[in-house]
Amino acid sequence: MKKPEEGWRRKLYTIIFEADTPAGKLFDVVLIASIILSVLAVMLDSVQSIRQDYGSHLYIVEWFFTILFTIEYVLRIACVDNKRGYIFSFFGIVDFLAIIPTYIGLFLPASRYLLVIRSLRILRIFRVLKLVQYINEANFLKEALKASRRKIFVFLFAVMTLVVIAGSLLYVVEGAENGFTSIPRSIYWAIVTLTTVGFGDIAPQTSLGQALASLIMILGYGIIAVPTGIVSYEMSNTLKSQLISPMCPSCGKENHDVDALYCNQCGSKLLKE
Amino acid sequence: MKKPEEGWRRKLYTIIFEADTPAGKLFDVVLIASIILSVLAVMLDSVQSIRQDYGSHLYIVEWFFTILFTIEYVLRIACVDNKRGYIFSFFGIVDFLAIIPTYIGLFLPASRYLLVIRSLRILRIFRVLKLVQYINEANFLKEALKASRRKIFVFLFAVMTLVVIAGSLLYVVEGAENGFTSIPRSIYWAIVTLTTVGFGDIAPQTSLGQALASLIMILGYGIIAVPTGIVSYEMSNTLKSQLISPMCPSCGKENHDVDALYCNQCGSKLLKE
Amino acid sequence: MKKPEEGWRRKLYTIIFEADTPAGKLFDVVLIASIILSVLAVMLDSVQSIRQDYGSHLYIVEWFFTILFTIEYVLRIACVDNKRGYIFSFFGIVDFLAIIPTYIGLFLPASRYLLVIRSLRILRIFRVLKLVQYINEANFLKEALKASRRKIFVFLFAVMTLVVIAGSLLYVVEGAENGFTSIPRSIYWAIVTLTTVGFGDIAPQTSLGQALASLIMILGYGIIAVPTGIVSYEMSNTLKSQLISPMCPSCGKENHDVDALYCNQCGSKLLKE
Amino acid sequence: MKKPEEGWRRKLYTIIFEADTPAGKLFDVVLIASIILSVLAVMLDSVQSIRQDYGSHLYIVEWFFTILFTIEYVLRIACVDNKRGYIFSFFGIVDFLAIIPTYIGLFLPASRYLLVIRSLRILRIFRVLKLVQYINEANFLKEALKASRRKIFVFLFAVMTLVVIAGSLLYVVEGAENGFTSIPRSIYWAIVTLTTVGFGDIAPQTSLGQALASLIMILGYGIIAVPTGIVSYEMSNTLKSQLISPMCPSCGKENHDVDALYCNQCGSKLLKE
Repeated sequence: MKKPEEGWRRKLYTIIFEADTPAGKLFDVVLIASIILSVLAVMLDSVQSIRQDYGSHLYIVEWFFTILFTIEYVLRIACVDNKRGYIFSFFGIVDFLAIIPTYIGLFLPASRYLLVIRSLRILRIFRVLKLVQYINEANFLKEALKASRRKIFVFLFAVMTLVVIAGSLLYVVEGAENGFTSIPRSIYWAIVTLTTVGFGDIAPQTSLGQALASLIMILGYGIIAVPTGIVSYEMSNTLKSQLISPMCPSCGKENHDVDALYCNQCGSKLLKE
Repeated sequence: MKKPEEGWRRKLYTIIFEADTPAGKLFDVVLIASIILSVLAVMLDSVQSIRQDYGSHLYIVEWFFTILFTIEYVLRIACVDNKRGYIFSFFGIVDFLAIIPTYIGLFLPASRYLLVIRSLRILRIFRVLKLVQYINEANFLKEALKASRRKIFVFLFAVMTLVVIAGSLLYVVEGAENGFTSIPRSIYWAIVTLTTVGFGDIAPQTSLGQALASLIMILGYGIIAVPTGIVSYEMSNTLKSQLISPMCPSCGKENHDVDALYCNQCGSKLLKE
Repeated sequence: MKKPEEGWRRKLYTIIFEADTPAGKLFDVVLIASIILSVLAVMLDSVQSIRQDYGSHLYIVEWFFTILFTIEYVLRIACVDNKRGYIFSFFGIVDFLAIIPTYIGLFLPASRYLLVIRSLRILRIFRVLKLVQYINEANFLKEALKASRRKIFVFLFAVMTLVVIAGSLLYVVEGAENGFTSIPRSIYWAIVTLTTVGFGDIAPQTSLGQALASLIMILGYGIIAVPTGIVSYEMSNTLKSQLISPMCPSCGKENHDVDALYCNQCGSKLLKE
Repeated sequence: MKKPEEGWRRKLYTIIFEADTPAGKLFDVVLIASIILSVLAVMLDSVQSIRQDYGSHLYIVEWFFTILFTIEYVLRIACVDNKRGYIFSFFGIVDFLAIIPTYIGLFLPASRYLLVIRSLRILRIFRVLKLVQYINEANFLKEALKASRRKIFVFLFAVMTLVVIAGSLLYVVEGAENGFTSIPRSIYWAIVTLTTVGFGDIAPQTSLGQALASLIMILGYGIIAVPTGIVSYEMSNTLKSQLISPMCPSCGKENHDVDALYCNQCGSKLLKE
């Protein structure tokens, strides 16, 4: 995002969107604390017994944070140049969703749905990650996952086919009398089983069903190795290209061999850290 | 599969079996959509409440897709040269199974078994994977799994022995009064436990049984590392041979040894990146 | 094991203990089939309904295999030189345990305990693995596990400490009224939870208990990475030293560097496959 | 910790804190046995039936070990120079917690809380690990985990966000009538599901809830690959730097580059094994 040229908006921008000044750091710390406290308030509000005893206190807390976040939202809009860009960005929408349910609650009776939208506030905490040293690690994980997304897609596709067939089979074998009342429900059971979650709310009762279930379980136990292998590989690839190879100081070429002493593009000596 | 020499059969072949013309791509997209919709119809048909309300609509949908797939099946047979080869290939059989249950349903009362065969249609979607860029990823996963199949076989063999012994032990220790009514059922329990699924429909009640179960669980928790390690290793091997080895600039041969300096086919010097 | 010098004992030894003659291969195939069938008979015998209907048939089958295995056992003893060595070897004891329960059953009323000892026969199948090409894979897995056994021991030790402390904590927090009736039972629950099995026969009911359980689950979910990492690493180490480095044709030295062209012991040129 | 200069305190220090003399080794073995037996006594004491029958025996055992550990504790304090340093070190506190509950039990009625503090004695066993060869392996695992702690933190952070949102969603979709009585409880369920534990004490009943749960399970099944990948990578990194690089024969510097031929500190030629 472009930084405003000068004046109070530039100052505000430095505090709100950046984290390399004392004021910017303080702002981020206060923001994290507010987000966590406000999400905690949402959670407590959903517990029947706490709501009965402390409902009015939580209502005040809720309004306090809503007003705080509203001021923050207005200031954010005020100090960016590209206002439309911010408002419709991912975090812009999250910021908006963080405040709107409380206002809607004034006109409509408070419903569970509003409660949940309020819990989306937790997503805002990610924007503050930028201030800490964790940004590199987060990027690293993101890169590794991005690099493996196609393989993971093919894998999930195969898993989907598997659970559809397994679900259909157990629907036939076990039938409604053993809890497999329909194919979608059987597929739900197959997912529960293949992922080794195993709630046990539905479980095969017939011998054939248990034999088939055993097969699915061993399959699930075995194929978990596949995504693990994928991510491990991509992760080591990502890290290798980030860490091992120094950038050529003359021509900027990256991805040199591990033992390269000179850039293989321009012959400059490489500076190893 | 050999492509027909010329004429309308060649054209049809290009559309149905290949995906590098606009018509071929359109055909594949329509086919994927039809497959998914027809499998969804099968699933909905198995839900009691939906069947009661929309049974006749689903019946029409079912016949619509069956006729569509029948036409496709006839055209596929028409345009390949080696008809027998296609009909008895894996996808040939899947294509046949995708249409036959509806016709059988005309003579026999619709049973759950026919329903499930219809759900095998989902397998057809894999034939369309060829059109997208995912074919490389799929091949990669296939290669890695193929390379590790022997190790996985030995591993599964050891797991099988383990669950037979563990199942027998718990049958003795717990007995029929705690749900371990027979050795096969105890083995089913051992698989549920070792794979960390843990339905909880059967669970040891005695102290000794729980101690043995603890052992099995820790074993299962530990040995899941084995298939993961196998696949990770083979995967990185597969990818290495795909990525690291440069292509010969003269003859185009790939998959050279990691340390090859000259192409082992034509003797040209390899350019390592 | 030393091979007998000559005569019928040498011939028998070749058939029974080795697998590189047609007779030796046939023997192994028949043995595998017998083992699997006899274990299946043991399993079926434990199912109440099958026993009632086919008990006498199974009794005959049982005696048939017992006599077969007894003959085999006697022949094995006859044809090895070091008889004591065979009898007290691992497979010698397994061979003995495979036949003795049926004879004991003549004098004592058949009990479940004898049934289970009979199921140990499945272990015998491992001795036949030698005949197939899987011996390399089995050795590979064994090597990798052996190399990582110390790290796995330290890991299991840490896990044990964790479940003792977690079990004690939940015993205090939840108490007997929620199923955590004693510390050993709580430890059993902690193992069920940490290994992500999750039977659900015991589950925390209080808020604090559920919070602690959440912690244990996330820990268990995270630390499963540790044994996986250990085995993956050792596996890739094992394979590397087995596969990549060629043996020196002059001096027999193994474990050369990946890119070695000459033996670093005697200077002979290495033949890469 | 600094060793005392001379006299009986030095001798005692050698026995208690070190393990390279016969007396020191004997001390460690006796200590391990005492710790394990005393923890076993604590566990048995929590079992209702055992307590009723052998309560007085266990009480004597408990006092025996408490006095033993008290003497050990006093001797440890006596023979270190920096007494305050020992007392407030991690193991100093654990040593103190190992003995104090029994004394408190004299004045207060024995409560479950004291029982649990006594079970913390198991932590003491780690101090004895120093004597065996496992210290390297333990250090190795510690290093690998330390190196990956930031990535794991980011990962746990993302998981936390996920379970908060998933928990809130299922609270709305399923509601109190299906066991999702509050957002914290729903989050507990989301953790149980995402980590593939799956107790089954709470399980979604509605179709939409089951569909969402399926998504969470597949996510959980997939993202377990992330910590595994992280630890695998760091582990191989840690080991590489430990094993591959030879030690300089002149100056003893370790951790040379993989391809280093000369020590980069003193220029001596490195001897590669």
